[in-house]
Amino acid sequence: MSRYLNPGLAGLESYTPGEQPRDMKYIKLNTNESPYPPSPEVLSAVNSGEAELLRLYPDPETTVLKDALAARYGVSRENIFLSNGSDDILNFAFLAFAAGGRKVWFPDISYGFYQVFADLYGINAVQVPLREDFTVDPSDYCSLPDVGGLICIANPNAPTGLTLNSGQIEDILKSNMDKVVLIDEAYVDFGADSALPLTKKYDNLLVVQTFSKSRSMAGARLGFAAADSQLIEDLDKIKYSTNPYNINRLTMAAGVAALKSDGYFMDNCRRIMETRAYTKSELEKLGFSVLPSAANFIFAKSDRIDGGRLYRELKSKGILIRHFDKERISDYNRITIGTREEMEAMLEKIKEILEEDDNEKCRS
Amino acid sequence: MSRYLNPGLAGLESYTPGEQPRDMKYIKLNTNESPYPPSPEVLSAVNSGEAELLRLYPDPETTVLKDALAARYGVSRENIFLSNGSDDILNFAFLAFAAGGRKVWFPDISYGFYQVFADLYGINAVQVPLREDFTVDPSDYCSLPDVGGLICIANPNAPTGLTLNSGQIEDILKSNMDKVVLIDEAYVDFGADSALPLTKKYDNLLVVQTFSKSRSMAGARLGFAAADSQLIEDLDKIKYSTNPYNINRLTMAAGVAALKSDGYFMDNCRRIMETRAYTKSELEKLGFSVLPSAANFIFAKSDRIDGGRLYRELKSKGILIRHFDKERISDYNRITIGTREEMEAMLEKIKEILEEDDNEKCRS
Repeated sequence: MSRYLNPGLAGLESYTPGEQPRDMKYIKLNTNESPYPPSPEVLSAVNSGEAELLRLYPDPETTVLKDALAARYGVSRENIFLSNGSDDILNFAFLAFAAGGRKVWFPDISYGFYQVFADLYGINAVQVPLREDFTVDPSDYCSLPDVGGLICIANPNAPTGLTLNSGQIEDILKSNMDKVVLIDEAYVDFGADSALPLTKKYDNLLVVQTFSKSRSMAGARLGFAAADSQLIEDLDKIKYSTNPYNINRLTMAAGVAALKSDGYFMDNCRRIMETRAYTKSELEKLGFSVLPSAANFIFAKSDRIDGGRLYRELKSKGILIRHFDKERISDYNRITIGTREEMEAMLEKIKEILEEDDNEKCRS
Repeated sequence: MSRYLNPGLAGLESYTPGEQPRDMKYIKLNTNESPYPPSPEVLSAVNSGEAELLRLYPDPETTVLKDALAARYGVSRENIFLSNGSDDILNFAFLAFAAGGRKVWFPDISYGFYQVFADLYGINAVQVPLREDFTVDPSDYCSLPDVGGLICIANPNAPTGLTLNSGQIEDILKSNMDKVVLIDEAYVDFGADSALPLTKKYDNLLVVQTFSKSRSMAGARLGFAAADSQLIEDLDKIKYSTNPYNINRLTMAAGVAALKSDGYFMDNCRRIMETRAYTKSELEKLGFSVLPSAANFIFAKSDRIDGGRLYRELKSKGILIRHFDKERISDYNRITIGTREEMEAMLEKIKEILEEDDNEKCRS
């Protein structure tokens, strides 16, 4: 830290992205990336012809991509906001709808970045405890005392993979017409109800999605939001006051191409859901408890091996999963669903680890 | 604006990017883009093989690109920061080094975004008037009464194209060891002194550059900063608290390739400087006053035609230049240097407009 840094930011603890080690080649099941490449349409949209145009600024209004998304999701252009990944949109939403003396509410176990955004803008963050079974209790959000502010719920939630249904989301919306309710749907395409259609009915609803997971484009940085046009205007104001050109030309071209590949995208989601069911059932055969997931990851623990140790042992065998050293969930690991072959390899390694443990016990 | 927006942002006036009209095909001399495509190395780096990797997150540490830049500019990896265009870095610098109760100083005529960043974070902005001849007077910045804060100077300045030399920058640095001095070098490669080597000597110096202009990559969104490692750490803290992955994989690959094409890049800069000299001299033959520019644009006015009208007449003839309807400079237009052919076409149209005016006067 330099002596010049804004003292209000001195204690800020940044977000820690999932590790991307380069010491060896791992099977990467730690950052919820897709095991499948982007669609053939995307691959051919990224070419030297498009690169020639890099000399020109991208369209800051992202009109072509907005129109394609609006058509895909049955809303209008004014209801769509695009930015550099969904993190960027969350950041803008915290600044727009909670900074300046209001509060934000989110579950105590959820995406770790929510607390960072709150700290960055000096927002009073209320972490609402999940129930014992890790589900969100909608009633916890239905009689909040404060007026105004932001409610932020990941659905499916991370790292649990558990979901609320549209009726439960609607209960929260109705009880909070004075607040913006942000539903972070990064993982929604893997089997959850999307609240996106409700944006036509509730002007306090902001639905945030991403091309990073289900559309295999984490490396392209493309997130979008759907909401009433007034909320979209507010987000635009922040974007045009920070970095209006934050979606580059190549990503824009890739995004338009991705939306022409709906069949490919839905096939991939289906394959991942099948592999998820297979992995869950195999882990359960090994004695693991696995939460029912509607995301491209599962959250699992075993009474036979401590969560932190399983993470470390798998890493030493070339497989990366994600362990959160945090109260209530330190027994668990979050495991991204890769290809069937990758999951088989992981299951083999887990069997090896458990057998080594058993042999160890026999010897002692 | 929605009823949910942070009231502190209600009056915020966003930045207005240069117009990108789509009603007809223009010769675009209004947004300081390069008339030349990115280097052949960049064109071949953007390919479907790279697109396949889009399923994976980019490296948030941008190590490969940082190392290439550090080698190119003779500094170390810890002295380089990369982000989504130089606007993004300016935004972070205002938040890190001026928000939280301190001030920012910048010239009254300069890049319009500085005031927007100040307004966004509620920073007290002091606009220091340029001298009558539009030059920055370094002594204006050498005995500021306040302790701490940020000085922000574009060098070359926009829209004037005028520069300070390294000695003048050094005077400002020495007088402000309690402040961060940000030198915005978006246009430095077209003939100005870079302050980048001074980052080894002054830990309060932050030099910001971009791939948008001289490296023909406005559409890729890639900016970088060089500074003492502690200032870089501060910027990293903000990046990791907002959007750690803000440089996508394709831009990263293009950036690395661009740094392998130094000869191509320097040839382009030279060509633009030659075309600038030609354009300036031709405009002067037509009676224009043209400021001496070290940027890829010139700032020019004529006693024969009002600045706003020249802009409109040229637009109606298919040529876009940039007019700022702002006190002290409304007589002027900022004209991007395109290819020699584009400038010849513009000069022809200006002759036509002036002749039409003369004929009009004869008739009346």
